[in-house]
Amino acid sequence: MLDTAEHSAMANAIRALAMDAVEKAKSGHPGMPMGTADIATVLFTKFMKFDPAAPTWPDRDRFVLSAGHGSMLLYALLHLLGVEDMTLEDLKQFRQLGSKTAGHPEYGHAAGIETTTGPLGQGLATAVGMALAERMLNAEFGNDIVDHMTYVIAGDGCLMEGISHEAIDLAGHLKLNRLVVLFDDNGITIDGHTSVSTSIDHIARFEASGWRAERIDGLDPVAITAALERAKASAKPTMIACRTVIGYGAPTKAGSHAAHGAPLGGTEIEGARKALGWDYPPFEIPAEVRDAWRVAGLKSGQARKEWEKRFKALPAETRAAFDRRIRGDLPSGFSDKIAAYKAALVAEKPKVASRKASENALQVLTDAAPELAGGSADLTASNLTRSKTQTAVTADNYGGRYIYYGIREFGMAAAMNGIALHGGFVPYGGTFLVFTDYCRPAMRLAALMGIRVVYVMTHDSIGLGEDGPTHQPVEHLAALRAIPNMLVFRPGDAVETVEAWEAALANRKGPSVLALSRQNLAAFRTEVESSNKVALGAYEIAAASGDAEVSIFATGSEVGIALEAKALLDAAGHPARVVSVPSFELLERQSPEYRAEVIGTAKVKVGIEAAIRMGWDRIIGSDGLFIGMTGFGASGPIEALYPHFGITAQAVVDAATKKLAG
Amino acid sequence: MLDTAEHSAMANAIRALAMDAVEKAKSGHPGMPMGTADIATVLFTKFMKFDPAAPTWPDRDRFVLSAGHGSMLLYALLHLLGVEDMTLEDLKQFRQLGSKTAGHPEYGHAAGIETTTGPLGQGLATAVGMALAERMLNAEFGNDIVDHMTYVIAGDGCLMEGISHEAIDLAGHLKLNRLVVLFDDNGITIDGHTSVSTSIDHIARFEASGWRAERIDGLDPVAITAALERAKASAKPTMIACRTVIGYGAPTKAGSHAAHGAPLGGTEIEGARKALGWDYPPFEIPAEVRDAWRVAGLKSGQARKEWEKRFKALPAETRAAFDRRIRGDLPSGFSDKIAAYKAALVAEKPKVASRKASENALQVLTDAAPELAGGSADLTASNLTRSKTQTAVTADNYGGRYIYYGIREFGMAAAMNGIALHGGFVPYGGTFLVFTDYCRPAMRLAALMGIRVVYVMTHDSIGLGEDGPTHQPVEHLAALRAIPNMLVFRPGDAVETVEAWEAALANRKGPSVLALSRQNLAAFRTEVESSNKVALGAYEIAAASGDAEVSIFATGSEVGIALEAKALLDAAGHPARVVSVPSFELLERQSPEYRAEVIGTAKVKVGIEAAIRMGWDRIIGSDGLFIGMTGFGASGPIEALYPHFGITAQAVVDAATKKLAG
Repeated sequence: MLDTAEHSAMANAIRALAMDAVEKAKSGHPGMPMGTADIATVLFTKFMKFDPAAPTWPDRDRFVLSAGHGSMLLYALLHLLGVEDMTLEDLKQFRQLGSKTAGHPEYGHAAGIETTTGPLGQGLATAVGMALAERMLNAEFGNDIVDHMTYVIAGDGCLMEGISHEAIDLAGHLKLNRLVVLFDDNGITIDGHTSVSTSIDHIARFEASGWRAERIDGLDPVAITAALERAKASAKPTMIACRTVIGYGAPTKAGSHAAHGAPLGGTEIEGARKALGWDYPPFEIPAEVRDAWRVAGLKSGQARKEWEKRFKALPAETRAAFDRRIRGDLPSGFSDKIAAYKAALVAEKPKVASRKASENALQVLTDAAPELAGGSADLTASNLTRSKTQTAVTADNYGGRYIYYGIREFGMAAAMNGIALHGGFVPYGGTFLVFTDYCRPAMRLAALMGIRVVYVMTHDSIGLGEDGPTHQPVEHLAALRAIPNMLVFRPGDAVETVEAWEAALANRKGPSVLALSRQNLAAFRTEVESSNKVALGAYEIAAASGDAEVSIFATGSEVGIALEAKALLDAAGHPARVVSVPSFELLERQSPEYRAEVIGTAKVKVGIEAAIRMGWDRIIGSDGLFIGMTGFGASGPIEALYPHFGITAQAVVDAATKKLAG
Repeated sequence: MLDTAEHSAMANAIRALAMDAVEKAKSGHPGMPMGTADIATVLFTKFMKFDPAAPTWPDRDRFVLSAGHGSMLLYALLHLLGVEDMTLEDLKQFRQLGSKTAGHPEYGHAAGIETTTGPLGQGLATAVGMALAERMLNAEFGNDIVDHMTYVIAGDGCLMEGISHEAIDLAGHLKLNRLVVLFDDNGITIDGHTSVSTSIDHIARFEASGWRAERIDGLDPVAITAALERAKASAKPTMIACRTVIGYGAPTKAGSHAAHGAPLGGTEIEGARKALGWDYPPFEIPAEVRDAWRVAGLKSGQARKEWEKRFKALPAETRAAFDRRIRGDLPSGFSDKIAAYKAALVAEKPKVASRKASENALQVLTDAAPELAGGSADLTASNLTRSKTQTAVTADNYGGRYIYYGIREFGMAAAMNGIALHGGFVPYGGTFLVFTDYCRPAMRLAALMGIRVVYVMTHDSIGLGEDGPTHQPVEHLAALRAIPNMLVFRPGDAVETVEAWEAALANRKGPSVLALSRQNLAAFRTEVESSNKVALGAYEIAAASGDAEVSIFATGSEVGIALEAKALLDAAGHPARVVSVPSFELLERQSPEYRAEVIGTAKVKVGIEAAIRMGWDRIIGSDGLFIGMTGFGASGPIEALYPHFGITAQAVVDAATKKLAG
């Protein structure tokens, strides 16, 4: 047991730093760190396997602050434990522009921030992905080098959000017993007491989803210790509802939403210092408390030294394989296999849906790269995301490489973030493109964090036909292209699909969307190319015979219409060229000269995409012609829908000739 | 009791129509209607208060097919009950372009389709809004004219989706005991048996959220009847897990995902006809079965006649008030009150955040229109969505007008759809603009259905400051403008905020977003205007002195920067004008002449918005200048962020003068 007085002083150091930093920033959330300081102190001093000297060591326990507004809890912990990356000066810069200590924890700002949190519920769902990745990597590399816990502190907000249901149901089903959720059960939300908006029994709810759950006094270090010991011994994931007091110590604001999201103010802080027996000026930590934290950090770091010994004892090949996986490098020879497969496709010229082309490509990719961890939100046979050699990940066999995420698009996307953040795997997952709306908050976080996740989004337009407007994406390509640092690919044939996959896997600093067709598409890439054309963003696939009067730009399933229109225009004496534009974002990354060349100087520019025009003006100009959608789709066979919405080669020809004449 | 043979024949009529329509369409989902035919038959013949002759009668029981892919169940029911709007020919046109019988039920296609479903989980969450609206309208108008049930059929998909958690937790908390969920517990999802992806105990889960829950044999009409009777008597909302067999009757595909989403095929249908004892050709319903359904419809319709009597006995004033509310007309005198308030604002010239301007406006609006039903996803004091005179809606008092939705953005948005669809109320609700990502699937459905819902989305840019990039919208204005039939307003001062509210409430055929600032904004609308300028989408707020060399377009909080830049440009001898653009969509609805006039012919066009450029080229041209964001925001004080991201009057001046010189 820790000495009680020592524990209290250590916990109060967190409370004081949180009060002080929020006060100095004149902005922030003091209540949460003050309420959970005891939990965090017990967790980090007695349980966490975390080396402050090597905070990114692969087998560390993961800690996710799902209630991200309580960011000062995490910053204070990292500082007190002695993480070099988090100085006292950093704490003083809380919430200032350019500081490591942003309002919410930002992945990449400092070692020890395992994921960006703030959008509620997602930290928990991301942690499920981390805990799953741990088991999957353990199944592959064994207990000696992969064997860690994932701890989460979540608040009422996290547990009210719908994504918490998806996350805990998946975790319970997969029996992720290395996952422990510490619920900051303070009974307070921004609108007041939780009884204003919920009457749920969280214990019963978690148990219904296959968790072990219990309620404790979250201010009592003995109770917290005992509960965490039970959690570590459990065969199920564990939720510990910790009764806490928001803003614990604050004389008038404790236990009230007044302590949640604003500085406490000088008088209140003074009162809290007195109540806590914390007799030190702002940002000052007495030597004995600082020492106690450093000792805890050193003790915790011992595990790494033992791990290093075990790791060194492994065969060189295993070590190299593990290191490669953790670095995230693709296997050697990977691009050669892709090149060979592309050559075979060029010979074969398959007329297949791009979702089918993706499935075929996945067979090559997953065989070559065991780190590819696939899945689908219950649309495996539609998204075609599972290769023949992938086995399912189950509670009995974490060694599989295919995750049946269930009908949980958002949970899937957040879990994929966790898998990517954990390291060792490159996650991809599928649903219908229209349901990127369900995934969107997690996709945004992937873009913000700059992590490699691949979304296999099929049924990418009205081309899906009869399921109708609820299932037909219209605005989704634009809405996804709008997200900073997101690559959106819409390949037009089998070769482009492989190249899109290659470019997505090469995109290590951000997520990628593959928008894939349900319907068959003719091959237009019929010559062997060693380079990846899709990586250019746009490139000419059919040159004009002579000076082009018309440049036609198209993506995905509409490239075929563009080629058809070119033939008609050529026949009518209007030389036309066709440019495939599989990725707007990658085109933006090319040189101005390349962009100018590929866009060209034809009098008439036409864009074709079975989606809205937004975003296209950058390519075709605001006076360009656009053949696409202007509103929602409709239920009907594909053969009826394209003509109904005027997306035909003849429509391109009519519009272009009218403009040429005008 | 119904005669068992008669019940079976009536249920089999549904099964046969579902098989036949899917087969004829060569597309669709036969398994769900075949599995739930018994449930639906009992519900509609013995419980539903629904008059086929008046399917939109206000006090009808609502039926929501949350498992929308089973659309043939609903179409078959409406046809068999004798709804004029649903002929046998309509069933034969299942999934054809222009038919009423779309792949998924589309609100507005035929009477009796209460909401558009298909995106899973949302039907259930929408039904919660309907059931809540029923209680709220009941509290106002009494049992005699508002007293109905809301029934939902939901599948595994609906219950796995996160939104189901938000929906059932809210419904349980508010004790919506007129809500009954019939869970089509067939154990099958697209990826196979539900055990592939979930181990949840749904009974325990619903009970944890304050529901009554039980499990029955969903193929047994006696059990279904008894369970529905218990549900109607319950003081809590009820979930009945009905064990069913997907594709019931199909000889080889019943009980398998093979029956889910594809035509059964001729041989299988033949076998099913034999197994069910249904000896009739496709689409043929024998007279006695048709008669039995019509009799059930007539019986069900009796309730309306009794209601009409009670309604006629009410005072004329009450009847007029009720009729107005159901029609959705705003109260008489409403626009005069807005005009008077605008005049007061023009005199006052308040410098307030647009969220605060919205709060002030809401005091006027909610006092004038009792149908305004507000709420927030636990950000009331930030969104400023509650007027002083609004009381909370609680399980003890449904007569309130403010809903504490809890930390459930998606559930709120879907519930608002249900409230709007129910009729009698105009729902509005708030969260941070960045969390429109959480609401987005429900916002899309509101746009697709064309219903009046108002989203009060505050903290609309980097101007929110320290909370940082997770909370700062950057791509959200573009992504919302991308949704067809969605009006997005970004008002720049208090008068524009009132006008945006007025325009949103006048927008009866679609949803509206109000994007509102956290920071204070100076008044620029300082003259009394009887017309609503915001309704024009864009209008000049400061003319050039002489021929304009520069046109500056801005929205919301950036209008102030535009005015500052104009002053600087004017002083430098470059006459500039400023156009406020509170709504891109409403500008699109103006005449080409007005658009041309307001956009003007200045040599240089500049757009300013603290967001990405996407969508702006339509106004400023692809060669226009844009001052805004190109990536994610950052945590820091607002005073630091605007200069850091180069969104300043000086940046506008520098860019414009450079272009004028070039």
